[in-house]
Amino acid sequence: MKGPLITLLTDFGLADHFAGAMKGVILGICPTAQIIDISHEVAPYAVTEAGFTLAQAWRCFPEGTMHVVVVDPGVGSARRPILVEADKHYFVAPDNGVLTMLYDEAAKHEVREITASRYFRQPMSRTFHGRDLFAPVAAHWATGVGMTEFGDLIHDYVRLPFSRPVRTEEGCWLGTILKVDRFGNVITNFVSEEWQRFFGQRFAMTVGERVVSRSGSNYAGMPRDSLFVIAGSAGYLEVSLNQGNAARAAGVKAGDPVEIRVV
Amino acid sequence: MKGPLITLLTDFGLADHFAGAMKGVILGICPTAQIIDISHEVAPYAVTEAGFTLAQAWRCFPEGTMHVVVVDPGVGSARRPILVEADKHYFVAPDNGVLTMLYDEAAKHEVREITASRYFRQPMSRTFHGRDLFAPVAAHWATGVGMTEFGDLIHDYVRLPFSRPVRTEEGCWLGTILKVDRFGNVITNFVSEEWQRFFGQRFAMTVGERVVSRSGSNYAGMPRDSLFVIAGSAGYLEVSLNQGNAARAAGVKAGDPVEIRVV
Amino acid sequence: MKGPLITLLTDFGLADHFAGAMKGVILGICPTAQIIDISHEVAPYAVTEAGFTLAQAWRCFPEGTMHVVVVDPGVGSARRPILVEADKHYFVAPDNGVLTMLYDEAAKHEVREITASRYFRQPMSRTFHGRDLFAPVAAHWATGVGMTEFGDLIHDYVRLPFSRPVRTEEGCWLGTILKVDRFGNVITNFVSEEWQRFFGQRFAMTVGERVVSRSGSNYAGMPRDSLFVIAGSAGYLEVSLNQGNAARAAGVKAGDPVEIRVV
Repeated sequence: MKGPLITLLTDFGLADHFAGAMKGVILGICPTAQIIDISHEVAPYAVTEAGFTLAQAWRCFPEGTMHVVVVDPGVGSARRPILVEADKHYFVAPDNGVLTMLYDEAAKHEVREITASRYFRQPMSRTFHGRDLFAPVAAHWATGVGMTEFGDLIHDYVRLPFSRPVRTEEGCWLGTILKVDRFGNVITNFVSEEWQRFFGQRFAMTVGERVVSRSGSNYAGMPRDSLFVIAGSAGYLEVSLNQGNAARAAGVKAGDPVEIRVV
Repeated sequence: MKGPLITLLTDFGLADHFAGAMKGVILGICPTAQIIDISHEVAPYAVTEAGFTLAQAWRCFPEGTMHVVVVDPGVGSARRPILVEADKHYFVAPDNGVLTMLYDEAAKHEVREITASRYFRQPMSRTFHGRDLFAPVAAHWATGVGMTEFGDLIHDYVRLPFSRPVRTEEGCWLGTILKVDRFGNVITNFVSEEWQRFFGQRFAMTVGERVVSRSGSNYAGMPRDSLFVIAGSAGYLEVSLNQGNAARAAGVKAGDPVEIRVV
Repeated sequence: MKGPLITLLTDFGLADHFAGAMKGVILGICPTAQIIDISHEVAPYAVTEAGFTLAQAWRCFPEGTMHVVVVDPGVGSARRPILVEADKHYFVAPDNGVLTMLYDEAAKHEVREITASRYFRQPMSRTFHGRDLFAPVAAHWATGVGMTEFGDLIHDYVRLPFSRPVRTEEGCWLGTILKVDRFGNVITNFVSEEWQRFFGQRFAMTVGERVVSRSGSNYAGMPRDSLFVIAGSAGYLEVSLNQGNAARAAGVKAGDPVEIRVV
């Protein structure tokens, strides 16, 4: 039998002691925990990016997994720490909207404010709640402490406006770039299921300085010198370049606008 | 008793959800698996670099380890996924030559084309076979599914021309740079066992803008301002600089030529 | 029951095979070991930085943990490998002063020179003792080999001068920057417990081009455009910028001087 599974997703990077300290705290409380890194390389303070990365990863893990999400520009302020159950997965995070995509996608979710300070590390710092609050709460949960022990249900938790494309005129929609991945693929917020039907028609996607009207179903079959749109593995339309960096070619970054025009 | 050991070697980086998603898929299928990262920081699409890194790492692991290697510029195209047994280690990878050094070094190897789509994640994307094909195949193997269940033996798998130094004239050999490591050590394809006998003679190694004729047996004993040749821990001659970056000093990168002249 | 816990802290980076090879060697000798990365992204050869990172992390782990620390500019030279017991934690490292902060902080410590070459990997390289000496020694220890088997106690191990602030004139102290973290927080060597009492008075901390006289107790409550001093989670005064990079704003890096003047 394996112990409880705990994933970590933070903006702490890998050069400092931050991630290692969290792991030590977890294993000190729950020696049987299995700790898996989702990523520690979320851009500093990038709450939306962390939410997207979590949304792509959590369902790949088995039910019963605890996910610790710490991207926390408000650490030490009045922002609340929360403990969430959603579709038999568990989450601890600051209540800053980082779980918005989770709330949107899970069939069911329940949010608690974590108030039981007896589960915090003492003395608790004002600047490193990853080590002093989120890691120990996850670890105590993993040892079998019940959800209700950590605090009461709340309903006024933070949900960020999750931006979906808006129709700006007949045949024209304005969306945004959710993320640029390591390979330079430009991940938009146009959901593939809804939008790839336009691949058969004439369409033009404007992304930065470039207009893209070619679509593809994999990278390798495409020419190396021109951008194309593809239904990516994340569930959204992406702009890509075969073995090249599409984001650099188009001069765009996360948060930039993307327009689709269908004729 | 520990569960089956699965290593990961990819060019996915650590900032995205890619590596985390693969780990989730593996643990969902085989909860007792132990997952160890070899590296996710192979340069994007760098098949030869990944092959070198694998060649340096796999024999350090115990027999029975499954190694998942995903550097896959041809994802979604007709390139075949393969499952390999070599000297009691196991490998899944795209059939793009990334395992060439393994084939050269193992006493014995057998290659199968993976065709049993019942072991793939559904629906399967065209762009993320790390999550949808390689991770689940490795995990099903780890639960005890026999090699023959995944597909038949093949013999026409891809082997890249593994470049060895060539003699260009009397006393002169032309080689190449396999890799530059984090410390700036320039790893050549001159095998130490064959070449370090020249350390006692007059030799000159030309690497980029520099000619190196000094050799050393460790870093710390060498002056800080001049390049030297050393029989490195990877089994090849390296050009190094004590606490400095030899590749930067010489202005070279992986793939560049290196010449040895013996007089 | 979980197996023995082994942490890794090196300057090997994550792009090469180095960390993966160490893990393979450990698991080959001690298959039940649990391996946890503290960091592999210590700056190359940065012994003091590694010592600081270790000092921040080791106490977070449970007693009985073995910590493998390899930042080793003197690899292959006469520098000794050591095995240390301190407050029921265990350490292997080169004897180059990287454990100085540990010696200062632990209630009790014992240092042995590792001489038992029967526990080394053969053949042993002159340049990669992480794989060939430190990893196998840690793993053999983890299988139950007694401390005394590895070598005798020594007392002339290396301690680096651990720089504490010095008083340069009435009301003025000169310190140094121990580290800049991922977020740009400037971690000084002014211990918070001793120095935060000045927060109520008029003080001026000079760091690079900036003079800081404001203090805060968390990041989020502070204005985004001005530097402030905070008692950080590492136990030292830090100079920070709310959601900004204080080190870049002040133009400083690890090792630079910091002055406190109290009036």
